[in-house]
This record gives sequence, C-alpha cells and structure tokens, in this order.
Amino acid sequence: MSKQELPVVATTGCCGPTLTTPLSADTAAELAAAFKALSDPVRLRLLSLIASRPGEEVCVCELTPQFEQSQPTISHHLKVLREAGLIDCERRGTWVYYWVIPEALQRLSTVLIPGVAAPAGASA
Amino acid sequence: MSKQELPVVATTGCCGPTLTTPLSADTAAELAAAFKALSDPVRLRLLSLIASRPGEEVCVCELTPQFEQSQPTISHHLKVLREAGLIDCERRGTWVYYWVIPEALQRLSTVLIPGVAAPAGASA
Repeated sequence: MSKQELPVVATTGCCGPTLTTPLSADTAAELAAAFKALSDPVRLRLLSLIASRPGEEVCVCELTPQFEQSQPTISHHLKVLREAGLIDCERRGTWVYYWVIPEALQRLSTVLIPGVAAPAGASA
Repeated sequence: MSKQELPVVATTGCCGPTLTTPLSADTAAELAAAFKALSDPVRLRLLSLIASRPGEEVCVCELTPQFEQSQPTISHHLKVLREAGLIDCERRGTWVYYWVIPEALQRLSTVLIPGVAAPAGASA
C-alpha cells in the first residue's frame, strides 16, 4: 500500500468530497459502488420514474408495466438501487412502495462538480 | 417495444435532462454508459487526480506512480474515461497529457439533482 499516498480526502464544508481534490481510495471505493448502481439503463430509468414524483411514493405496480423486463428482474434492479442507498421502500399489503433518498443523489451530484477551467495548453 | 411508452425525455433549458422527469430509454442508455465509467474506484481516483488541477493538463507520468496497478492497466482505465467523454488527452513526445471535460462532468452532475422532497407518507 506504500504507493497509495494520496492527499487526504477532500471535504468541502457540509457537502463532502468533490473531484476538485483527489479522492482517497476508501472514498473512491464507496462512490464507485454507488455509480455502479447507476450504470444500468433500466436502473437509471427506474430511478428517474421514482424521482419524478417529488414527495410521493411510487408503487412497484406502476413501475413494472413501464418495462419489457420481467417483474423479478425489475425487483432485482430496485434492490440494487436500494442497497446502494439511493432509494428506500416499504411494503404495505400486496405492494412495495419506493421513494428516492435526495441526500444520496445530491452527494453523488456534488462529487462530480468539476469546478475546473479548460486547460490553457489543450488547444494545440 | 410497445411497453416503452415513457414520457418524452425531459430537458430543462440548457442543462439537459434531470431525474425530476422520467428519462427516455435512449438517454438512460447514454447516461448509464458514462456512469459505468465512474463505477471503478481506480477510474474515479484517476479522474479526481486530473480534475484536481484546474486549468492544467496532467502527465500520465504523474498519475501512474499514485497506483499499485501496472502502467498498462492505468492506461486502460484512462482510455475508458476518455471513451466515455469525461477526459481528453494529447500525446507530446514521450508522454500523454490528460485533462477533464468540465461540461461532461457537469451534465452527469445535473442529471442527478433530485429536486424532490421527502415523501409525506414515508414515515410509517
């Protein structure tokens, strides 16, 4: 591990690390796992369907008909999003209801804010 | 494809789609590919090392010593980031120099902005 002497993880006030300072190996591993949950088109669409109803829960019975995939496949993708901490759910009676965790999405959004200018010598 | 009748992709002015409106299948596929590039801890750290030098290029000769992985492995990860449109590079003499594409990072950041409130019925 001697080569992994990166600068200490950057934290900018309340908003956590951003890409404007090198990420520690631990933070990078944690964030990469969350981004992996977003690396599938079906999961991204599921997340957007849930996030598009601000302040509401969305029944799995409304999500599944939007996709060609089977109900177990959709449930698996929802589980991946939930395990990544991006959504949460509650079972009530027959159905499971989902909602996004805005803080988690906000954190991933913030970490990508580049805050960098174009390199001066990059035009050649 | 008859089930894929999602609402038209949301665009919010100049900033492109956000998760506050359902993503189209095409947009989700495009974004998922970019998030996949971020789903590896080494790539995230590489990106942060490059992004942490605003307005500058970073020589691959400065990046490789930060990692335990071999130089070809690091080069492969840099290629994945480049093919995802998140960084660009230029070879000059012996070395390749990298810089981030702020607009690409900004787009991914924006798409995650939830803009949603906590669900009213989620406390039970």
